[in-house]
Amino acid sequence: MAENAGQDTTAHAAISRVTDESHSLSFDYVIIGVTGDLTMRKLLPAFYERFRLGEIALDTRIIGVARSALSTETYRERAREALVEFAFSASQDRDGVTAFLDLVHYVSLDASDRAASGWSLLEALLATHADRVRVFYVATAPKLYVLTADAIAAHGLITEATRIVLEKPIGTDLASAKAINDGVGRHFREEQIFRIDHYLGKQTVQNILALRFANPILERVWNADSIAQVQITAAETVGVGKRGPYYDTAGALRDMVQNHLLQILSLVAMEPPTALSATDLRDEKLKILRALKPMDPDTIARDTVRAQYVAGEIGGKPVDGYLDDLGVAASNTETFLAIRAEVRTTRWAGVPFYLRTGKRMARKESEVVIEFRPQPWAIFSEPPKPDRLVIRIQPDEGVSLSLASKDPRAAGFGLHEAVLDVSYAKAFGTRYPDSYEDLLMAVVRGDQVLFIRRDEVQASWRWIEPILDGWADNIRPMETYPAGSCGPSSSDDLLRDDGFSWKEKI
Amino acid sequence: MAENAGQDTTAHAAISRVTDESHSLSFDYVIIGVTGDLTMRKLLPAFYERFRLGEIALDTRIIGVARSALSTETYRERAREALVEFAFSASQDRDGVTAFLDLVHYVSLDASDRAASGWSLLEALLATHADRVRVFYVATAPKLYVLTADAIAAHGLITEATRIVLEKPIGTDLASAKAINDGVGRHFREEQIFRIDHYLGKQTVQNILALRFANPILERVWNADSIAQVQITAAETVGVGKRGPYYDTAGALRDMVQNHLLQILSLVAMEPPTALSATDLRDEKLKILRALKPMDPDTIARDTVRAQYVAGEIGGKPVDGYLDDLGVAASNTETFLAIRAEVRTTRWAGVPFYLRTGKRMARKESEVVIEFRPQPWAIFSEPPKPDRLVIRIQPDEGVSLSLASKDPRAAGFGLHEAVLDVSYAKAFGTRYPDSYEDLLMAVVRGDQVLFIRRDEVQASWRWIEPILDGWADNIRPMETYPAGSCGPSSSDDLLRDDGFSWKEKI
Repeated sequence: MAENAGQDTTAHAAISRVTDESHSLSFDYVIIGVTGDLTMRKLLPAFYERFRLGEIALDTRIIGVARSALSTETYRERAREALVEFAFSASQDRDGVTAFLDLVHYVSLDASDRAASGWSLLEALLATHADRVRVFYVATAPKLYVLTADAIAAHGLITEATRIVLEKPIGTDLASAKAINDGVGRHFREEQIFRIDHYLGKQTVQNILALRFANPILERVWNADSIAQVQITAAETVGVGKRGPYYDTAGALRDMVQNHLLQILSLVAMEPPTALSATDLRDEKLKILRALKPMDPDTIARDTVRAQYVAGEIGGKPVDGYLDDLGVAASNTETFLAIRAEVRTTRWAGVPFYLRTGKRMARKESEVVIEFRPQPWAIFSEPPKPDRLVIRIQPDEGVSLSLASKDPRAAGFGLHEAVLDVSYAKAFGTRYPDSYEDLLMAVVRGDQVLFIRRDEVQASWRWIEPILDGWADNIRPMETYPAGSCGPSSSDDLLRDDGFSWKEKI
Repeated sequence: MAENAGQDTTAHAAISRVTDESHSLSFDYVIIGVTGDLTMRKLLPAFYERFRLGEIALDTRIIGVARSALSTETYRERAREALVEFAFSASQDRDGVTAFLDLVHYVSLDASDRAASGWSLLEALLATHADRVRVFYVATAPKLYVLTADAIAAHGLITEATRIVLEKPIGTDLASAKAINDGVGRHFREEQIFRIDHYLGKQTVQNILALRFANPILERVWNADSIAQVQITAAETVGVGKRGPYYDTAGALRDMVQNHLLQILSLVAMEPPTALSATDLRDEKLKILRALKPMDPDTIARDTVRAQYVAGEIGGKPVDGYLDDLGVAASNTETFLAIRAEVRTTRWAGVPFYLRTGKRMARKESEVVIEFRPQPWAIFSEPPKPDRLVIRIQPDEGVSLSLASKDPRAAGFGLHEAVLDVSYAKAFGTRYPDSYEDLLMAVVRGDQVLFIRRDEVQASWRWIEPILDGWADNIRPMETYPAGSCGPSSSDDLLRDDGFSWKEKI
């Protein structure tokens, strides 16, 4: 954020111009688990930015709920500190922050306990605006989702205009996901349930839709006739940090693939939706999730790689291994994985989709790489490198297209790769909105297009579960990789067997 | 050139690496008309650069021929001055220039006069290396080409390894072009005749071939199914300058379209050649030149625009009109034109090719614009702008691709144009070789791939001639445009009638 500070005024002026016409919205947003990291780092800053843009009315209420016995005043002070630390430009906007904090209220309450004493206060607060849009954002542990929904229902707080937002992970396997969906679904209709995947809030992920469906020349080549392979990578340099105890029960497959990477895959692979509605878009994504070829013991052994980081070096500094980070002697949890997936549709038959994610990798880099088929007949003395489209999700959001080009340095017709590139920060000269901003406001507008439908969650788990089971049975043994590397060499072998390689450098 | 000076060492190091393996060549290059502007500004600097790169052997001879009575020593001094002024890095390379000038010789001779006294000296000089590659580069007026070829032949100077290079224009119409081709062809076989079009020496023009035939994703969309229109522009800010008297007899159609623009059009429109040989490539270009729909009085009136500049302003400074530049009271010569052409092939039927060229325009800018067809069905709230590929020939050589992209500044799915771009100067970190360098050396190697074949020249004239005649009959009246503008408004109307517009700004 710091490097953007200089653009502040212009950037906001630019955004304001775009959104001036939209009306500001009045609503009650109840955040359950409001003292947690997510609220402080993401949700409050997101609301603040949209407030600054005039999208949120002055009588809107952001009602924090958590077990701690805090006064609204005390909570507002904590919120102020969080905004100054995490919001884009709060440090230069004392008055704006104060005005925003007037919207924030705090209720001390264990929302998973329907008998807790705080409910009457929350009820009274909400009753003063019974008809407006009301949102319950559940930012607690998934095992509390159903209890919380039960309690909200028991206190009669679910109006026609009420919505519930569920953070990932929705369960730890297919059965627990179903249990959450069923339990929450007893009180809320599917149109009221907003399962959040913050990757769908990323402009660069949404841009996959724009690139594919607003550019006829890309749509023409977006199929197995022209595309040789697809790579979807989400690499991090961080380790497990404070999330260690949770992460060790989850692992990369549950934490990254079941949601983010499969969502990206479905956006890359889907057929064009008839319209950009929640139903049309999610119907098409679902078709892809269902078209993923199920894994069996043979393919799990052949097409998956799992590994755990050991001590290594990142940016010249030594870093510990996963076991030391966790302070345990042994763990069977993967912090890296690579998977060769297949999408069984007419458009994609025969095109491998390589998924890869890891912690403590050489570089932070999330991107989609589309490698096109090589020239079938080369009239130049050297065969050109295949064309390649790279959609950079983060950081340095942008798109590049590598084309073979005349090498001006050589006599005759030498070729050289020319990379056509756009960096969105430069192109749009704007602050890049955090992924939560759009999502939080979409809930208020009741727009589900960027949220995961029940059947999508379950289709993802259905594909993931056999891999979880196969790994539990050690069909594919765990490997290790040094922190700061690109994962174990068997990740490279996965592609080499098909005649491909990962795009150079993570 | 000046702005590249800083890159000198690295650039040359980079080029040297590429060309280190090639053997340096020994040859005799006779430049007829060696005191002219072209030799001083282009030919000598081009030889010097290639000498620096080690492509030219120390016993090579560059033999200047002109009528002036000069000694070799005097001529070398003039050449040194020209190199310092016009060659990329000669001013920092005194020793290199001196070494190069040892290759330069001068013979005083009117080469169009077979009875001139200087022939014996030239004969004697060439006789010392009778077997090596010998080139006659005729940089005089076209009306002297046949006389010069006759004289060279009469003195027995055409060996098996002798080639002749002819500068444009080859004639002023079809009949005069045929006469030159026939006259020179009486002494030289077609494989010995190198008709130069320096646009084909431009890396960016050659890059059209690389882009089209080394990138399958572009070839897939390179047809009327995907492409809506093609624009080929060569705009200059300069006026006619010292070339005024010549230019007034030629005009933009003869000076730019018959050669450069039709060559670019044929590279853009041609079918893929089977190989990159002179025969294959030129066969395919010829097919396009022959597929151009012939103009008739109706289409000349409707599809052509011609205009002459009047006084105006460029870069804030007033500039004179064409008549004042020439010092004449009246002229019927066009300094600007726009033409809608049609290529009658399966690949291109229905796609307009707009050609445009002019002097004293708002900006110096030569480029090819490929505008693709719009999205047939838009799922976004606003229809996206059509995709567009721009091949920048000069200046700022490069390529850009405009794609519709998610606008990160707007909530919902607003679109915004993102321009993926590569600037070759940055991408290749190298001095961009002048177009003559490759061409001069290709003659030595006997490689005709970048030279115009007899039938191409004649096919071009065959298409041009009816327009010349129609304009002479005033079927399309002459218009005017202010210097520093983009030409007359009827140039815009030409595209507006088809629902298009020129790419913004020249």
